[in-house]
Amino acid sequence: MPELRQDPITKEWVIIASERSKRPHELRRFEPLIEKPSYKESCPFCPGNEHMTPHETLAYRNSGLADSKGWWVRVTPNKFPALFPEGSLERKEEKGFFRMMDGVGIHEVVIGSPIHNQLFPFMEDKQVEEVLLAYRERYLAIREDPRIKLIIIFKNHGQAAGTSLEHPHSQIVGTAVVPSNIRKKLEEAARYYDDHGRCVFCDSIQEELKFGRRIVMNTEKFVVLQPFASRVPFETWIIPKDHQASFGLISMEDSKTFAKVLKGTLLKLYSNLNDPPYNYVIHTAPIKDEQEDYYHWHLQIVPRLTTQAGFEMGSGIYINVSFPEETAQFLRDRS
Amino acid sequence: MPELRQDPITKEWVIIASERSKRPHELRRFEPLIEKPSYKESCPFCPGNEHMTPHETLAYRNSGLADSKGWWVRVTPNKFPALFPEGSLERKEEKGFFRMMDGVGIHEVVIGSPIHNQLFPFMEDKQVEEVLLAYRERYLAIREDPRIKLIIIFKNHGQAAGTSLEHPHSQIVGTAVVPSNIRKKLEEAARYYDDHGRCVFCDSIQEELKFGRRIVMNTEKFVVLQPFASRVPFETWIIPKDHQASFGLISMEDSKTFAKVLKGTLLKLYSNLNDPPYNYVIHTAPIKDEQEDYYHWHLQIVPRLTTQAGFEMGSGIYINVSFPEETAQFLRDRS
Repeated sequence: MPELRQDPITKEWVIIASERSKRPHELRRFEPLIEKPSYKESCPFCPGNEHMTPHETLAYRNSGLADSKGWWVRVTPNKFPALFPEGSLERKEEKGFFRMMDGVGIHEVVIGSPIHNQLFPFMEDKQVEEVLLAYRERYLAIREDPRIKLIIIFKNHGQAAGTSLEHPHSQIVGTAVVPSNIRKKLEEAARYYDDHGRCVFCDSIQEELKFGRRIVMNTEKFVVLQPFASRVPFETWIIPKDHQASFGLISMEDSKTFAKVLKGTLLKLYSNLNDPPYNYVIHTAPIKDEQEDYYHWHLQIVPRLTTQAGFEMGSGIYINVSFPEETAQFLRDRS
Repeated sequence: MPELRQDPITKEWVIIASERSKRPHELRRFEPLIEKPSYKESCPFCPGNEHMTPHETLAYRNSGLADSKGWWVRVTPNKFPALFPEGSLERKEEKGFFRMMDGVGIHEVVIGSPIHNQLFPFMEDKQVEEVLLAYRERYLAIREDPRIKLIIIFKNHGQAAGTSLEHPHSQIVGTAVVPSNIRKKLEEAARYYDDHGRCVFCDSIQEELKFGRRIVMNTEKFVVLQPFASRVPFETWIIPKDHQASFGLISMEDSKTFAKVLKGTLLKLYSNLNDPPYNYVIHTAPIKDEQEDYYHWHLQIVPRLTTQAGFEMGSGIYINVSFPEETAQFLRDRS
């Protein structure tokens, strides 16, 4: 019998279809990994090609000029941005009915390593830390722009996850609007807080830890879990145990711990699912809500092992062919 | 400069990123079509294999027994259903915190032709009509089940659109819950009705017809258009001009006209985009709202030419690399 599970945070339903369910190892298989070179002359993110990107907004290097070699993490505006720093915030109307505005915002690329084929799971701990510190530093800089309402940090890994460049990179987007589905999530979280006087995410963590079967990793500061109403097989969250609405407010210290946990989680996925394509995204409160008691930042990893189809489009209900209790155990039992 | 466009119905934003924009013919290319056989011995949907599916719930045939050959449209329960007809509607709780219920519902498959390689664009008009009449007939039967709240009819075409079986088929799902994102869409539509005393979809149609540049086809009863805030390249809607909240209430007559328009639209996509993978879904009011003044059924076609990635997951804002004005013209100008 399939199960309908309700996401305690968004109130959306997910179908866990046991009759269609596949064992973790029966999910989409990937081709054996193709060895990629550690340097590619034509890659705009490889050292020596700094002129192929817009001027950097941040780089970690020991010495040397901006936009030159010698960095280990480098952040530049996206060459093909989805949003532009210039433009007006005014709402315009087409024919008095349709509403639009200039695509105002920030869109940057975080080049996570000078090495073309360097994947997160195989970086030195220190390197992953530096990538996360770059996220944090750019978050704190971008939030100073009074037009920016929300900052989204994400990574697309592999072609099936929507990336075209193989050199490891992530992206930071600052938007001048709060999307209505984010607003809805915050409203639901606020309602829970009204009823219980506690953050729904904090309560989720407690429940998940008590239940235990969906926990992938439990560390002092962070829990890695596969949520009760996981939308896709192996959806995995990394969530700080201490209440904190915004990733931007993470301490340097916690950021380093977070780096270790992120690396460990990505390594588990890499090893046990054969380098699956995935997206990760840091869900964090809009800037004006950074101090709220009812929201709680977390990083969501979405492996792209299955394809969403017409039913999801029509209903917004995801059909997940795996039980998170099984996939979490699968990862927990393996290094 | 990219544009942020607001969907007038859901209030969600879409980014139309002109700087990233590709001309219609530069979008994902497909391999030359592989000739598929008109009959496949192992295909559960091919005639003679009726025993390979659950017992039919509807079939159009001139004579002969149920679950035998001779049909031209056949409907059966899905062999691997996402939802089951049996079970309880009671909400259950896991550990007093997480909410779940049995996966109660209906999940059927509409086999659109006895011919294994028959695609919609190449069917006789009559055959497409019969498929749509089967949708309608099953809708009207399923809605009699008092547990069913919403009926979703959809089709997945091609592997990238999430289908595994090549024999042409569509699916009907009846759910025992109204998903929260559908409820939200209805609430927004009701708010528009409160303000204006008119259906937001009816007004959209009028605006689109006046503007003209996003119209693909205009017939007496139906408009084919690419919406102002299209989420993906070539997103296409077929929408009845007369106000009607529920597809289930379509007349036999209109259903036949709808068939012609659907076939014509799918043919345009087939010919000009080289048989792209796509999903289509009929968005229709929940059963209790079938007579509402503020909702308006429509069929949405979503070609799968691009991949949604981390930004969409984090923000709910889609990035569309094409202007619907350009893609609509591209289809309008070509047969």
